[in-house]
Amino acid sequence: MATTKSLSRGVAVVGAGMSKFGVHKDKSSRDLFVEAYQAMSASVDRGFDLAEIEAVFVGNYSSEFFEGQGHIAPILADAVGLVPLPATRIEDACASSGAAIRQGVMAIASGLHDLVLVGGVEHMTSLSTAQVTDALSAAGDMGFEMASGFTFPGIFAAMASAYMHRYGMAPADLHSITLKNHANGALNPEAHFTQAISDIMAARMEAAIKNGSPLPEWKDENAFLEDEAANPFVAWPLRLFDCAPISDGAACLLLASAERARAFTDDPIYVIGSGQASDYSLANHTDLTNMRATRLAAQAAYEMAGVSPMDIRLAEVHDCFTIAEIIATEDLGFFAPGTGYRMAEDGVTARDGPRPVNSSGGLKSKGHPVGATGVGQVVEIWKQMRGEAGPRQVKVDVPLALAHNLGGTGSSCVVHIFERR
Amino acid sequence: MATTKSLSRGVAVVGAGMSKFGVHKDKSSRDLFVEAYQAMSASVDRGFDLAEIEAVFVGNYSSEFFEGQGHIAPILADAVGLVPLPATRIEDACASSGAAIRQGVMAIASGLHDLVLVGGVEHMTSLSTAQVTDALSAAGDMGFEMASGFTFPGIFAAMASAYMHRYGMAPADLHSITLKNHANGALNPEAHFTQAISDIMAARMEAAIKNGSPLPEWKDENAFLEDEAANPFVAWPLRLFDCAPISDGAACLLLASAERARAFTDDPIYVIGSGQASDYSLANHTDLTNMRATRLAAQAAYEMAGVSPMDIRLAEVHDCFTIAEIIATEDLGFFAPGTGYRMAEDGVTARDGPRPVNSSGGLKSKGHPVGATGVGQVVEIWKQMRGEAGPRQVKVDVPLALAHNLGGTGSSCVVHIFERR
Repeated sequence: MATTKSLSRGVAVVGAGMSKFGVHKDKSSRDLFVEAYQAMSASVDRGFDLAEIEAVFVGNYSSEFFEGQGHIAPILADAVGLVPLPATRIEDACASSGAAIRQGVMAIASGLHDLVLVGGVEHMTSLSTAQVTDALSAAGDMGFEMASGFTFPGIFAAMASAYMHRYGMAPADLHSITLKNHANGALNPEAHFTQAISDIMAARMEAAIKNGSPLPEWKDENAFLEDEAANPFVAWPLRLFDCAPISDGAACLLLASAERARAFTDDPIYVIGSGQASDYSLANHTDLTNMRATRLAAQAAYEMAGVSPMDIRLAEVHDCFTIAEIIATEDLGFFAPGTGYRMAEDGVTARDGPRPVNSSGGLKSKGHPVGATGVGQVVEIWKQMRGEAGPRQVKVDVPLALAHNLGGTGSSCVVHIFERR
Repeated sequence: MATTKSLSRGVAVVGAGMSKFGVHKDKSSRDLFVEAYQAMSASVDRGFDLAEIEAVFVGNYSSEFFEGQGHIAPILADAVGLVPLPATRIEDACASSGAAIRQGVMAIASGLHDLVLVGGVEHMTSLSTAQVTDALSAAGDMGFEMASGFTFPGIFAAMASAYMHRYGMAPADLHSITLKNHANGALNPEAHFTQAISDIMAARMEAAIKNGSPLPEWKDENAFLEDEAANPFVAWPLRLFDCAPISDGAACLLLASAERARAFTDDPIYVIGSGQASDYSLANHTDLTNMRATRLAAQAAYEMAGVSPMDIRLAEVHDCFTIAEIIATEDLGFFAPGTGYRMAEDGVTARDGPRPVNSSGGLKSKGHPVGATGVGQVVEIWKQMRGEAGPRQVKVDVPLALAHNLGGTGSSCVVHIFERR
């Protein structure tokens, strides 16, 4: 394995924005990418000249499967007026735009570019849920996992089962993640779901009254989440509200060389750590209670940044399923193995807690347009670090934050660490 | 547009190899990638330790369409024993592995990595020709080109028509490219087609004698290529032998930082220029007789390398169709617009000529497993520059060589320039 590395020159985020994540059947990837670009553009304090951008990197899992369109990078570059710049699509399944950030960072550090656009996009809802499940399954190993009928909910359910068996977690312990992330998403206007679980309960109660149907008797939010009718099992122990939705969306970052960053803003966010790792498909994992790729990517990012997990104040982690957030917070070194779910239950990772995780709502509530997720995480980090997250602004100062983006059945992971100086 | 750039640190090719390109219905992308990796491995003069490699970049157009498998980078990394390294798939249609080389170069120049594997792979023949045509069409613009029935042969046929109209080229002038590239491919054991046109004529004559069918009366190779039965039109003026085949194959390079290159070989090939550009889809090109993306990518590569087109001794260019080679040799600045086909006819670009182009056989004869093509070109350059091309070794010394890799309907182009010191 590589020894600790440092960048030939520094890199900073100088702008970040996203489209609203959600169901956008009337829009295409290009439309959503334009919206994200415009939001990014508006976030650059001193503005920039389009002609200063030098390259485009786009994370996208599969416009082939979802929209029948390959070679999407130049099409997206065209949509935002950036032809004839180099335009490259980066793919690592759900970690595609995390990997795209890494390419953008390397492009600048390499000396080839000073200002690059890094985006992510996915338009998923034109397919049926069954078709999306098949398309996402292709991010696992078709020959060794999917051939046996293992789709993503099943895979993460197996991890949840193994985790429960080893650490004594109960299925209902997963609800703390659902409750927290929906509460955060309720404060994020760009989230796919902007309702806390209590809002959803109230809406269903109101509907029952209007329809004259029998009133549900939920004594609290946990009871709602335990109600098989309200929250059916998808793959035991994972229920509907344990799963991130199928979303459409896009997100964009503007990266600059550190020496030029302050031409665009007095408050850039520096990329001080970047780590990436691959792994065998889950069929060959020897332990289902953690993700080795997360551990290795995090280790590389921490070493490069010269910081420890304890230094990280805020993180956006890849909660494609509630169990994935619990395991990520452990693999990233925030909490000891087997304790992540308790930290969530105790409010440690709540928005107003000491170590907020997924203040954006996470994939669970903000939504998961897979190729856009990695960049979308950094949009939240940009806002929180700069104190621009509005009603969902965390209570702690955030000098250091981390983004964790997972791909496939844990066979790709990208971790970035950001510093506000 | 960007000003001239230089790499933060130098990068060299220290190994290169490929699988045989061709029809490999009994093999998958993983199998072919392993073969390419083994060939690359055998080419590294002093050998290397697998554990020294630090990252994997794979160019692949669409394992989704061709094999139903997304997220192929970690799967290929696994196949060659490189899990848990960072593994990233790079996609720019037929320029995917040219773009992957650029990512590998930037990864090293950035300071993040010292030794990286750059590969390219595509397995296309499990689909029918019609399905492949559809899959490749998705590399154009589905909404604005393909919706009107424009597939790739039609697009390049339109370019050939426009070129003939402007410069007075006759359809038969295209044959010089076919003849040259088949003659070169006949000397390349890894080529898809290893027969010169004269070999093909002799084989058909022999078959006619055996079958007792009427003997064809071709007075020479040009007559064979003008025979509608032997060489039918695909899209006028392009005939069957004007089109690159549908191939399976893989290719690999080992890239090292310049300071470490001589640990692996006394004869590294330095990457001194890298250029990439995007363009609108062909539907929006204002001139069909050239490719702007090629011109801009070449300009960036020449500026970075500090050399001129006249300095280049050998080139592998993207001859997906014969007309594409003619236009590429003009856009790269080797020949004036409208003269490229004459240079081929006059033997200037022949293997034993003063400026050999596609000594490997080119896409036409070596084959075109689209995601593998860009790296495959550099395998030929590696061999020719080092004098290891055996019976097809060019006559000229090659201190400087160029690789030109085109994607989609000219909406991506990547150019690299290599130096042997």
